[in-house]
Amino acid sequence: MDDFRLDPTLERDTAFVGALPRCDVLLMDDCRFPWLILVPRMMGVSELFDLEPADQGAVMREAAIAGRTLKSLTGATKINIGALGNIVRQLHIHVVARKESDAAWPGPVWGFGAREPYVPRFREGMRLKLAEALGAPA
Amino acid sequence: MDDFRLDPTLERDTAFVGALPRCDVLLMDDCRFPWLILVPRMMGVSELFDLEPADQGAVMREAAIAGRTLKSLTGATKINIGALGNIVRQLHIHVVARKESDAAWPGPVWGFGAREPYVPRFREGMRLKLAEALGAPA
Repeated sequence: MDDFRLDPTLERDTAFVGALPRCDVLLMDDCRFPWLILVPRMMGVSELFDLEPADQGAVMREAAIAGRTLKSLTGATKINIGALGNIVRQLHIHVVARKESDAAWPGPVWGFGAREPYVPRFREGMRLKLAEALGAPA
Repeated sequence: MDDFRLDPTLERDTAFVGALPRCDVLLMDDCRFPWLILVPRMMGVSELFDLEPADQGAVMREAAIAGRTLKSLTGATKINIGALGNIVRQLHIHVVARKESDAAWPGPVWGFGAREPYVPRFREGMRLKLAEALGAPA
């Protein structure tokens, strides 16, 4: 949609990976966890149930695609999916690759310690690899 | 499905509310947060992307219905939805009503402190109210 604007906090903390049919896919700039965020390109939506039922299904199928892709690229033990939005109200869905060896395991990543930005060159590599694997045009 | 069995940890920590077409709806026995758990009645599924695409959509629409119901019953500020499964691997989707005044706000409820069981009479009241609002037969 023409008037879609990404929340400023999401914009600051992520790098754009590419666009799926319903959602923009962002890479969380936190090298502690391979972490994608999907943002449906619609304004004024903060709860999953604010979407039309068909869009709820479509958005979650995109989250599932992101999860499968992240799992196969990282060899994760478990994918964690979450839509919280207590701080940033624009609807966004976290898709995070988790391993037993990661810093927060088995707890959630949300609210855990401080974000650790990637070395830029490494973030760019991740971003491109993800865009290709997702078939998501930048 | 005939061979569906609920994970023993989920069974211990929850009370059965009712059945939606794809998922059993459980009330987390934790009076700190109004908290539902949806469990698709299928065995051997631990990731959202293990489901067929049509089931992914249907399960998430049921999670959205549970979220809307919980929000209207509790007057929550925000609904948090999560599928983590780092500890319990049977696919289950948390739907939690959050308020600024709750103990964990704005952090996640998962891994936060210790569960505080309801007084049984109050849990039973919640359970019945939720079953009726969801139109979910017990």
